[in-house]
Amino acid sequence: MDRAQAVLSAASIVPKALVSHQSQDSPQAWSEALQSANPAAPAKYNLTKVLVYKPKTAKNAVPVPVVVVAADNAEVNSGALAKKLKLKELRLASEDLLKEFFGLDKDSLTPLAIDASLFPRVQLVLDVSLKSSSEIYGVHAFSKDGTAFLKGSDIAAYLSNFETAEAKITEIDFVELKSQAAAEPKPAVVAKAAAPAKKEPKDDGKIEGAVQIGILYKKEVDFPGWYTDVLLKSEMMDYYNVSGCYILKPWSYSIWESIQEWFNSKIRPMGVENAYFPMFVSSKVLEREKDHIEGFAPEVAWVTRAGNSELEEPIAIRPTSETVMYPYYAKWIKSHRDLPLRLNQWNSVVRWEFKNPQPFLRTREFLWQEGHTAHLTKESADKEVHDILDLYRRVYEELLAVPVIPGVKSEKEKFAGGLYTTTVEGFIPTTGRGIQGATSHSLGQNFSKMFGIVVEDPNAPKDAAKDPNDPNAGKLFVWQNSWGLSTRVIGVMVMVHGDNKGLVLPPRVASVQVVVVPCGLNNKTDHQVIYKGCEELVDILVKAGIRARADVREGYTPGYKFNDWEQKGVPIRLEVGPADLAKKQALSVRRDNGTKAPIPLEGIADSVKSLLETIQSDMFNRAKQAFDERLKVVTKWEDVVPTLDGKNVVVLPWCEAEACEDDIKERSGRSAEPQDEKAPSAGAKSLAIPFDQARFPKLEEGTTCPACGKPAKRWTMFGRSYCEYIF
Amino acid sequence: MDRAQAVLSAASIVPKALVSHQSQDSPQAWSEALQSANPAAPAKYNLTKVLVYKPKTAKNAVPVPVVVVAADNAEVNSGALAKKLKLKELRLASEDLLKEFFGLDKDSLTPLAIDASLFPRVQLVLDVSLKSSSEIYGVHAFSKDGTAFLKGSDIAAYLSNFETAEAKITEIDFVELKSQAAAEPKPAVVAKAAAPAKKEPKDDGKIEGAVQIGILYKKEVDFPGWYTDVLLKSEMMDYYNVSGCYILKPWSYSIWESIQEWFNSKIRPMGVENAYFPMFVSSKVLEREKDHIEGFAPEVAWVTRAGNSELEEPIAIRPTSETVMYPYYAKWIKSHRDLPLRLNQWNSVVRWEFKNPQPFLRTREFLWQEGHTAHLTKESADKEVHDILDLYRRVYEELLAVPVIPGVKSEKEKFAGGLYTTTVEGFIPTTGRGIQGATSHSLGQNFSKMFGIVVEDPNAPKDAAKDPNDPNAGKLFVWQNSWGLSTRVIGVMVMVHGDNKGLVLPPRVASVQVVVVPCGLNNKTDHQVIYKGCEELVDILVKAGIRARADVREGYTPGYKFNDWEQKGVPIRLEVGPADLAKKQALSVRRDNGTKAPIPLEGIADSVKSLLETIQSDMFNRAKQAFDERLKVVTKWEDVVPTLDGKNVVVLPWCEAEACEDDIKERSGRSAEPQDEKAPSAGAKSLAIPFDQARFPKLEEGTTCPACGKPAKRWTMFGRSYCEYIF
Repeated sequence: MDRAQAVLSAASIVPKALVSHQSQDSPQAWSEALQSANPAAPAKYNLTKVLVYKPKTAKNAVPVPVVVVAADNAEVNSGALAKKLKLKELRLASEDLLKEFFGLDKDSLTPLAIDASLFPRVQLVLDVSLKSSSEIYGVHAFSKDGTAFLKGSDIAAYLSNFETAEAKITEIDFVELKSQAAAEPKPAVVAKAAAPAKKEPKDDGKIEGAVQIGILYKKEVDFPGWYTDVLLKSEMMDYYNVSGCYILKPWSYSIWESIQEWFNSKIRPMGVENAYFPMFVSSKVLEREKDHIEGFAPEVAWVTRAGNSELEEPIAIRPTSETVMYPYYAKWIKSHRDLPLRLNQWNSVVRWEFKNPQPFLRTREFLWQEGHTAHLTKESADKEVHDILDLYRRVYEELLAVPVIPGVKSEKEKFAGGLYTTTVEGFIPTTGRGIQGATSHSLGQNFSKMFGIVVEDPNAPKDAAKDPNDPNAGKLFVWQNSWGLSTRVIGVMVMVHGDNKGLVLPPRVASVQVVVVPCGLNNKTDHQVIYKGCEELVDILVKAGIRARADVREGYTPGYKFNDWEQKGVPIRLEVGPADLAKKQALSVRRDNGTKAPIPLEGIADSVKSLLETIQSDMFNRAKQAFDERLKVVTKWEDVVPTLDGKNVVVLPWCEAEACEDDIKERSGRSAEPQDEKAPSAGAKSLAIPFDQARFPKLEEGTTCPACGKPAKRWTMFGRSYCEYIF
Repeated sequence: MDRAQAVLSAASIVPKALVSHQSQDSPQAWSEALQSANPAAPAKYNLTKVLVYKPKTAKNAVPVPVVVVAADNAEVNSGALAKKLKLKELRLASEDLLKEFFGLDKDSLTPLAIDASLFPRVQLVLDVSLKSSSEIYGVHAFSKDGTAFLKGSDIAAYLSNFETAEAKITEIDFVELKSQAAAEPKPAVVAKAAAPAKKEPKDDGKIEGAVQIGILYKKEVDFPGWYTDVLLKSEMMDYYNVSGCYILKPWSYSIWESIQEWFNSKIRPMGVENAYFPMFVSSKVLEREKDHIEGFAPEVAWVTRAGNSELEEPIAIRPTSETVMYPYYAKWIKSHRDLPLRLNQWNSVVRWEFKNPQPFLRTREFLWQEGHTAHLTKESADKEVHDILDLYRRVYEELLAVPVIPGVKSEKEKFAGGLYTTTVEGFIPTTGRGIQGATSHSLGQNFSKMFGIVVEDPNAPKDAAKDPNDPNAGKLFVWQNSWGLSTRVIGVMVMVHGDNKGLVLPPRVASVQVVVVPCGLNNKTDHQVIYKGCEELVDILVKAGIRARADVREGYTPGYKFNDWEQKGVPIRLEVGPADLAKKQALSVRRDNGTKAPIPLEGIADSVKSLLETIQSDMFNRAKQAFDERLKVVTKWEDVVPTLDGKNVVVLPWCEAEACEDDIKERSGRSAEPQDEKAPSAGAKSLAIPFDQARFPKLEEGTTCPACGKPAKRWTMFGRSYCEYIF
């Protein structure tokens, strides 16, 4: 009841009444309970029902449940509804699924259980008769013995709170729908399926891969569903009521902090300094570099109003900071003595994408670092491009245990306005898709010419005759780089390592590396002795620099705790029970592979440290093996699409012509599986030209590009991939 | 010439021509040099002039120079201009001032020298005849031997680039102005003052307090001018082309980073976790808590457009995150076991103030941390409010060497929507004004009631009879706090410690604690030996954990380097010359008090460490003494205003009535000096009721409030103050 009140007051909706009554387990019993029970129920009211359907979809596709909120007396014809929604077939969801999805049983199911997190994951159908009704309707107050009474229009208002640009309520007039259905031949299944969930809760429509506890989806069956479920259940993030924005909870933010700390410790000795530039850019400045801004323009968020005043000129929120920073570089750099200038900032940028957002991978606001440097010589700039790229490689490989392949982007895929782009490319084995990890760009002199960042050439011969008509005689435009790494790294880490129990965290970035769980407690054991043993063990580990925590919560079983910490991906669980203490040991359980082994308490800090290192390297090696196995050298065109379809990245002896790249994308896309809206684009594009060409066979003289037949230049990775940010 | 091209290309303006010619030192010589010199000069053109005037102002007020950009043949009547601009009198600025202000002599002065940093600091007057003219005008290209030719309209466009909501170009029609002046009796001074600067550069109108090198203003004479000059010259910040936003350069951002590191290390053990919530808030959510939002509404920046699409509903940029976060607290907190919930974030917030911005003190975007916590009991919440406030005190006192007084705010000054607000109050001796340092708020249960953040009472008697009509029977609304500290701390530190040589940094937050400068070099000494000695000394210091740097820049004198590092506030300078090396010593110079003393190289790391600690505590003690001396106990009303006028904070035995506070502000404001637009409000308000009441005389029974005569409750600090953020 308090929960009902909380969600309503949060939505600024005042219920007509909140009524406690006898427990009920059917619509009829509900009605009776209300009649007999409580004087606070309104004199006149209707009841509501919530029906949950699972649509039939192609294998591997995500079934998006259809949730119908309707007046109790509405006749919901599921066949007609399916047709209206352009779905193949609707089956009532099993009661298990209701519990998993809503945390409620069929007799408590309420429209109030819909929240910002659930709403985008379902297709919500609203009985149009409720929308404009000022009549009073009863909805379950999250339980069998409570009812909230609301105006129909308030129910509609409550639900519409969660609408976003992508996720809208579908309004259906069930009277009209019924008459349409009556005019058509009735499919055989309708009669059964149309019965309300409450009356026929048993149904075989259980979502494949749904499990009773823990993660709802199987990674290999429903990857997108699995991904968001893992992120939510591990408390990495939560949905937010502005579409495309997500809350980074401490469990993920701490990973970002550990990356920040490591990266800062590496760039400082290189001479890079951190700074902070404003988030706003005037439109004039933003639009100065045409090539550069072209890619961002459709996604720029504009501030046009402050308080009640319209701004004279709209102001953009930075999508990236080249144009924010470079006018000041032109001002600050007066002499070659001011070079190199190397600034970095940790900030958030905004790109108002209209494509389907994905937590960490594609979000409207995201956190990153962006480094912007200016050099006297191309050599100095080139060296830094590669030094930074190597730091990015190490963030992935040494901190996140995710293998990546460093290389250079094709002309088509490089940063617009730059000279060349280097990248570390990752791989998601489950989908067989490549993913851009982070990029380090050489901007050459393009931006310095645009912004007038120029110095006197210190090596120009003194008193040399200068062309008086050339104002830049004896001057040098500086060489610039920019480089960025975003919170996307966290998404890649989750996708690569997570399993059907949830998250698997690499020890070096886990905010909790070891959880100590008391076990084997019963009425005969002295709980406090065991708890004390656990706390002492944690003290020993923490003193040795290990991030350890004891889970001494009362009222939870060890099994519940195991599941909880497994979902959250803690690398090592140490179980401590009376028998363990007697044997002066703890039982260690590795999250990454489930291996159990007793560890003597004597010297346990060292043993655990070394086990953490083993886990870190095992995780990396497994992921590296998976990537290596799926990196296929292909030299004939007819092998390209089948190899991609086998969830591989292909490595082609490529001609490096842009037209050929377009052609490869077109031809590999056509033959691929039908595109799913949530899946990334299915045409293959060039991912990178790896620096390490020696890992592939020697390119024989006369080798030709399998796509166009022109002479091959270098081995190049092509793959289906996740849509990328320009950084 | 390259500089002219750089600023023009940065403004997307293409000059008609850039012409090199013989050096000239008068308008006539300029004209001749152009005629005789170079075929690239356009066939037909006019010349321009730039006149700089200093207006006469009240003592202690900031003189804002008037810069006139006009066609060379325009007749500028300074008397009429002064009248038009509502200024007392205009005097031509001295050549020294031109050099200081523009870095140019009178024969090179050019409109192109105006940039985003200069523009808001002058009143720019533009000859209206230039504005719409497509004729060609010559302007100096930053030198005596270069000229840029531009369309008149391009000159106007160039200057208008720097206009902001607060700083606009004043357009004057000098023909009209002349005819107006002719119609009036001519003041005696006009004839002389109207002559162009170029012809009569010598004038006694030098700005009082301007000095030849280093900081342009004296702290005690022109505090606002001094403040921004110190920030710019020490490279703490730079102006930005969106009004009210500033660039935090590494020299200040590193101070913020050291505060972050320290504060994180203290809140983590308290159980506070860092997280990141989105910067956007939907209007519905933002407007939910009416009391709370009322104070922010006029300053909220609204995003209404993304790319070319209008958003369905405008989205706000967070001015603070209560309403961003608390709907999720309601969702996450399901049981008393989830309490306390303690999250903190380091982020930027936006408050689109229309008042005069001031770097660090009042900016439209600023960096801060905001902590938001929820507790089961008031006791737990209260304890945290005070624990956090003590951390804020320590940030000021232990890191920044700035004394503050902890206390509680009056009802009028507390955070709207909260229960009570605690604060650490600082003091700027130069102006005698108080300044709010940071605040830690008890929100009580106001927000938890609004957002429905509720738990089952774990201490409620089991099976107690619950009122079935009270849905909250046995439930508890959580107790909440919020607390924040912003980059304002840096501004306070600068104001308290800086002097007429520039910044003075407390050692604990200085990114460079020691600078080693080679000295006594001449043609006979081997520079490399001395440089090597300096580098070795730095190595020794760095290994001991001291942030040291050697300044071995070639082409700069030791004097230049001394001045440079003094402006930047480095705590210790170590001078190393041949004589020092021979004596195995270095000469130390303290930035805070100028004390010089030789230090033996033997054991120098320890000596320097201890000297840094001494400087830190000396700086704090001096500032504390200054604050203590200016904290005056006043018990009679007639003493209040004179004491405030003496640049003191008064401590009154106060009744704590809100009406009395309004009255004090009104009465102390009326009698004060006339308000300057750049100065903070002149009425005194309550700053804090100090927790440490014992430092003041014992409040005798029957003591009355000197303002209203009602019984006094507690000693309360009142003062003129800097406008405050609500945090």
